[in-house]
Amino acid sequence: MNTQHTRRNFFRLAGISTAVFAGCSTAADSSAPAALVPIAPAVKARLKSNLAMASYTLRKFPLDKCLEMTVRAGFKNIAFKDFHLAMDSTPEQIKLAAEKTKKAGLNLYGCGVVYMKSEAEVNRAFEYAKTAGMKVIIGVPEPDLLPLVDKKVKEYDIPVAIHNHGPGDKVYPTPAVIIDKVKTLDKRIGLCMDIGHTQRMGIDPADDAAKYADRLIDLHVKDVNAAEAKGSTIEIGRGVIHIPRFIRTLAKIDYKGMIAFEYEKDDSDPLPGLSESVGYIRGVIDAA
Amino acid sequence: MNTQHTRRNFFRLAGISTAVFAGCSTAADSSAPAALVPIAPAVKARLKSNLAMASYTLRKFPLDKCLEMTVRAGFKNIAFKDFHLAMDSTPEQIKLAAEKTKKAGLNLYGCGVVYMKSEAEVNRAFEYAKTAGMKVIIGVPEPDLLPLVDKKVKEYDIPVAIHNHGPGDKVYPTPAVIIDKVKTLDKRIGLCMDIGHTQRMGIDPADDAAKYADRLIDLHVKDVNAAEAKGSTIEIGRGVIHIPRFIRTLAKIDYKGMIAFEYEKDDSDPLPGLSESVGYIRGVIDAA
Repeated sequence: MNTQHTRRNFFRLAGISTAVFAGCSTAADSSAPAALVPIAPAVKARLKSNLAMASYTLRKFPLDKCLEMTVRAGFKNIAFKDFHLAMDSTPEQIKLAAEKTKKAGLNLYGCGVVYMKSEAEVNRAFEYAKTAGMKVIIGVPEPDLLPLVDKKVKEYDIPVAIHNHGPGDKVYPTPAVIIDKVKTLDKRIGLCMDIGHTQRMGIDPADDAAKYADRLIDLHVKDVNAAEAKGSTIEIGRGVIHIPRFIRTLAKIDYKGMIAFEYEKDDSDPLPGLSESVGYIRGVIDAA
Repeated sequence: MNTQHTRRNFFRLAGISTAVFAGCSTAADSSAPAALVPIAPAVKARLKSNLAMASYTLRKFPLDKCLEMTVRAGFKNIAFKDFHLAMDSTPEQIKLAAEKTKKAGLNLYGCGVVYMKSEAEVNRAFEYAKTAGMKVIIGVPEPDLLPLVDKKVKEYDIPVAIHNHGPGDKVYPTPAVIIDKVKTLDKRIGLCMDIGHTQRMGIDPADDAAKYADRLIDLHVKDVNAAEAKGSTIEIGRGVIHIPRFIRTLAKIDYKGMIAFEYEKDDSDPLPGLSESVGYIRGVIDAA
């Protein structure tokens, strides 16, 4: 509002009607009739090429079908949930799955959400990720294991993105809680912000993306039908999250990580809702 | 480009640096880093509520399944292709199908594409539409039947939107050809612009939407993978049509008709690609 007033005063001083330029501003909120500076073409291209599948979406399908559906929905990147590659797989099994994924034309960039409740599970997660050639572990390590995670991140050079689970999560409900717990650790330990769970805490995920930009490593995108604990997951664009604002924020903070779709609805037939969601985000990126 | 120049001249005359307003314009091309005035919220809401199913998309499915899929994809409006209600249906059959559609929560706003090759077929199309309570006939009447169509439009007050079929169509290849044939007729005879076939003629559909705004009655939206005759249909957002520019043009010309999805690909399993397409358009509308 301040910018608006300043502009109006400027025009008044200059003796020019503001009608011609009504609302010409760079504000991110598209609900106001203010002009917006489009995201640069190169940033749009990067955001689109970094759209990814969080394979929890396809938890009811075996690996081959999961890869086929991921390709059909237009993705180039995937992170495995353990349904598609068990955490206790042998190195041979891991390499075989990684090879299969590559052959399907997909970049197996990570795994998650990986729960780590013991030292052995932390050690196993890093070996698993390294063997698969993954670039990030999306995880939920018990807080008392964070010093070990810190050591492992330095040893393996594989970042760990801690996932917030919203109102029901006693350990990591919000991005703020996660950041508070990792702020003194290696910079490669940060956040996989789940925008649905964040919104269910009553927090606009665009605000937290901007606030914790330097520790934002990965994203789980979805939509929810209410900004409260009982809000449930829904096709992106049909819910309450202000996605255009969120995407503009990612561009503004120069976010370079993946934007992974964790579509939780319709687990037996997720492709239509997932495709609607990815279409929506692509449309927002192209028009924003 | 002219508007840009005019604006710069205006600033030069006013003795003001244009830097502050660099590119602050309403130009529809988002590839340039010029600021864009967002579409007004009320117009966005109307564009979204006017998204519709062109039931040719679901030609492999019986009526009940067609309605179920249309609802699942989030539509409120549908136009029937004859697969879902044959043109030679009895009035009772027509009323039954219309009732079923209403019960499914859908507005049965039209029919098409209806080919009319004889007087009898023109008469039948208007009776069919009237009995079903449809608001528009999307049709391809033989040109020598246009005087009869003109008479029927006045009699029934049901507009006829003529559909362009692109390079292979000897009668109505482009919007321009259609407009030339109907320009002296009742204003309720106009265009159902198929943006895919228009783009395959090498014409940007945004240009023709603006050019023929006063006769633009209905739309078939889709995308194509090349702006040439051999271009084939594809999920919206994956092809060559500049959809953000097109949507901004619809807002600019204050288009009040339906935006019907005629998704031709994947006829046995259209829901994922259709949903991606409708998600894309919703995302563009929300962000544009």
